[in-house]
Amino acid sequence: MKTVDTLIHARWLITCEEENKILENHSLVVNDKKIMAILPTHEAQKNYTATHTENFPGHAIMPGLINAHTHLAMNYFRGLADDLALMDWLNNHIWPAEKKWVSHEFVYDASLFAMAEMIRSGTTCFNDMYFFPIATAEAVDIAGMRAHIGMTVIDFPTAWATTSEEYFALGMEFFEKYKNHDLVKATLAPHAPYTVCDKNLLTVKDIAEKYDLKINLHLHETRDEIAQSLTQYKMRPIQRLQQLGLMTSRLIAIHMTDINEEDLAIVAASHVSVVNCPESNMKLASGICPVIKFKNHGINIALGTDGAASNNDLNMIGEMRTAAFLAKLSNGNPESLPAKEILKHATLNGAKALGIDHLTGSLSLGKSADIIAIHLDEIETLPVYHPASQIVYAAGRHQVTDVWCRGKRLLKNRELMTLDEAALKVKARDWAKKIFVV
Amino acid sequence: MKTVDTLIHARWLITCEEENKILENHSLVVNDKKIMAILPTHEAQKNYTATHTENFPGHAIMPGLINAHTHLAMNYFRGLADDLALMDWLNNHIWPAEKKWVSHEFVYDASLFAMAEMIRSGTTCFNDMYFFPIATAEAVDIAGMRAHIGMTVIDFPTAWATTSEEYFALGMEFFEKYKNHDLVKATLAPHAPYTVCDKNLLTVKDIAEKYDLKINLHLHETRDEIAQSLTQYKMRPIQRLQQLGLMTSRLIAIHMTDINEEDLAIVAASHVSVVNCPESNMKLASGICPVIKFKNHGINIALGTDGAASNNDLNMIGEMRTAAFLAKLSNGNPESLPAKEILKHATLNGAKALGIDHLTGSLSLGKSADIIAIHLDEIETLPVYHPASQIVYAAGRHQVTDVWCRGKRLLKNRELMTLDEAALKVKARDWAKKIFVV
Repeated sequence: MKTVDTLIHARWLITCEEENKILENHSLVVNDKKIMAILPTHEAQKNYTATHTENFPGHAIMPGLINAHTHLAMNYFRGLADDLALMDWLNNHIWPAEKKWVSHEFVYDASLFAMAEMIRSGTTCFNDMYFFPIATAEAVDIAGMRAHIGMTVIDFPTAWATTSEEYFALGMEFFEKYKNHDLVKATLAPHAPYTVCDKNLLTVKDIAEKYDLKINLHLHETRDEIAQSLTQYKMRPIQRLQQLGLMTSRLIAIHMTDINEEDLAIVAASHVSVVNCPESNMKLASGICPVIKFKNHGINIALGTDGAASNNDLNMIGEMRTAAFLAKLSNGNPESLPAKEILKHATLNGAKALGIDHLTGSLSLGKSADIIAIHLDEIETLPVYHPASQIVYAAGRHQVTDVWCRGKRLLKNRELMTLDEAALKVKARDWAKKIFVV
Repeated sequence: MKTVDTLIHARWLITCEEENKILENHSLVVNDKKIMAILPTHEAQKNYTATHTENFPGHAIMPGLINAHTHLAMNYFRGLADDLALMDWLNNHIWPAEKKWVSHEFVYDASLFAMAEMIRSGTTCFNDMYFFPIATAEAVDIAGMRAHIGMTVIDFPTAWATTSEEYFALGMEFFEKYKNHDLVKATLAPHAPYTVCDKNLLTVKDIAEKYDLKINLHLHETRDEIAQSLTQYKMRPIQRLQQLGLMTSRLIAIHMTDINEEDLAIVAASHVSVVNCPESNMKLASGICPVIKFKNHGINIALGTDGAASNNDLNMIGEMRTAAFLAKLSNGNPESLPAKEILKHATLNGAKALGIDHLTGSLSLGKSADIIAIHLDEIETLPVYHPASQIVYAAGRHQVTDVWCRGKRLLKNRELMTLDEAALKVKARDWAKKIFVV
């Protein structure tokens, strides 16, 4: 009889490993922040005692969800300006609001608030792109999530930085400060091909290679972006990035709609990861990421919500559903992107995109105890014939009851353990009062 | 000071009338099952006392949602067979399961279970098409919802009826039994153009005219349906229905994807109502209902979830979101189908389709007290700049806290008042154990 930190007995264990095996009446043995064993519950009960024992007779247990594209601090702009054309939305609402309000304090408060939403919907890891990355990282220290945070580069002044030199300098300051952190990892984050010049993209590439970092980039988000690139550079954005040497396994290509055969050939020959953001792409009428084509070419596809100003939530449970629906509709085939596969987009494939699939993204021996519990024994998800189907096609985010990240409990029977829900709501209301009179 | 049954003080009142005015700090005065007054809260407090007074300082109050297309009893088949091609799904899973299990008892149990899901997500009225309509109506008597229930006609034998004569006879038996019911109303429900012959469609039309009833029909759900009609009848289904005299204001045309210019001209010249079921159409890869084109031709568009075997929920909050997203994407315009408009699809337009907009579908003087409260002061929906945006783009169904239908409380602070949640779950699990071994 061994004594361990935590024993989790589950009705269903959804592993999200390559084959995504689903185990019934199995248990997770967690010790020293890691998954130490996975075995049938009757054997676990014979072989282990634990400081904490959790019984989940009506739950599915799975790895924490990985939101592969966020702008956390935009949560304070949620619903400020919906149902508008993209350029009206950006020029007349989002960018002026950002210019006026975004600060270290704003990003800290809004990101912490966004982390509460993510934890409450089963996300344990996110990949963020915004300003004031140190503020986001400080919020991570409170929330206890796993975070990849971008060193944003954009060729115009914002509330955070004015010149290209300043963007790179502030980015490197963040990188240096957090380079040995357990949960925070820096990424390069040039905003988009239409907002970052060749020179800056090449600097991004150099820094990424020097420090072995991933590069996040909004790529082929809209037709306009492609038309503009054809005018300005006489080539499509993906072609331009290839010429600059950025189409490599370092690149996390976000959105990727409107892909023609030449684009596809370049993507297939590279080892970029693609992040599909179907709800943002639908709400802003941007286009459709051809996930089935990418899959058929062996491309890794992760899933992201985008920011709350263009989605308008950070709910990966709902995003999986929309992604599966849109893949079926756009391919004219209801067999496209089945439940067990989209669950991997939201877990293992996200970890691969971020280069941390040796650490997290599946329930596997030795991986970090990044674990969530989803209660399926509810009016909305009964009967449970196939738990993967119920999670993707019927469950709501409020059915996520418990969350651990690196073995630490972040949500316990719907209660936030590291964050103060009431205080977060007060702060959100206070900020909104100021922002709304812009 | 007048004494009334119920006073509801709300932070926001979303009227869902034609202009869909949103009132702040207003109150609803409910008496004798009806809305008696709508006025600013400070005036309501001066002029009325009530047996029940409800304060909703962080809620939006709106009319109960109207689900314009359901197959309630299919809730017991939720998740039984997903990610399959339509004909495989029907022929090898759904139809065999229905043949084996559907009975009066099954329909009663499964429909009552489905009503619990609908009440918990803010639906007060549904438009159902299934078998054993008397069983569904009996469940309505327990649940207290408003129900339009179809007299189904289909040209092949099912668990309910064998011959056309039997379908019509059983339908009329239901009609006679419930013709004076407060909440239940019969409709004709020929299944689809490809499953009902001309003769039976004409009989449907005669009965509908004789008793002044609506006609529900799955129409233009898939391309295959249209191809088959071209082969068999040398015309498209909408053309055939026009020739048969069914394209009138009685018709509730469900799905309506793949609409060409000739179809559109026929629809525009008729006064049919269209029911958009975007999630079912996406999940089964059926197609897209062109809601903006229909709107531009003055067609009334309601919203429905379809059955839980092809959606897989009866959640109208989520369905509004998907409908808005899909309209924006398919029209290439993020301004398409804004939040305030899709809220009307899910309320007033549903009432118009069913011919009961004089009774329900908006918060208007004299209409039935069919009312729901949605809590927006939550991590997921703060800040609230525009309540309509938060309901459509950010809220989850679990944020519906309270529901009244015809003045009767069906949900009180998330607790079902007319149904026994625990007992419903036991029954669902018991049925599933039998069904799963098929």
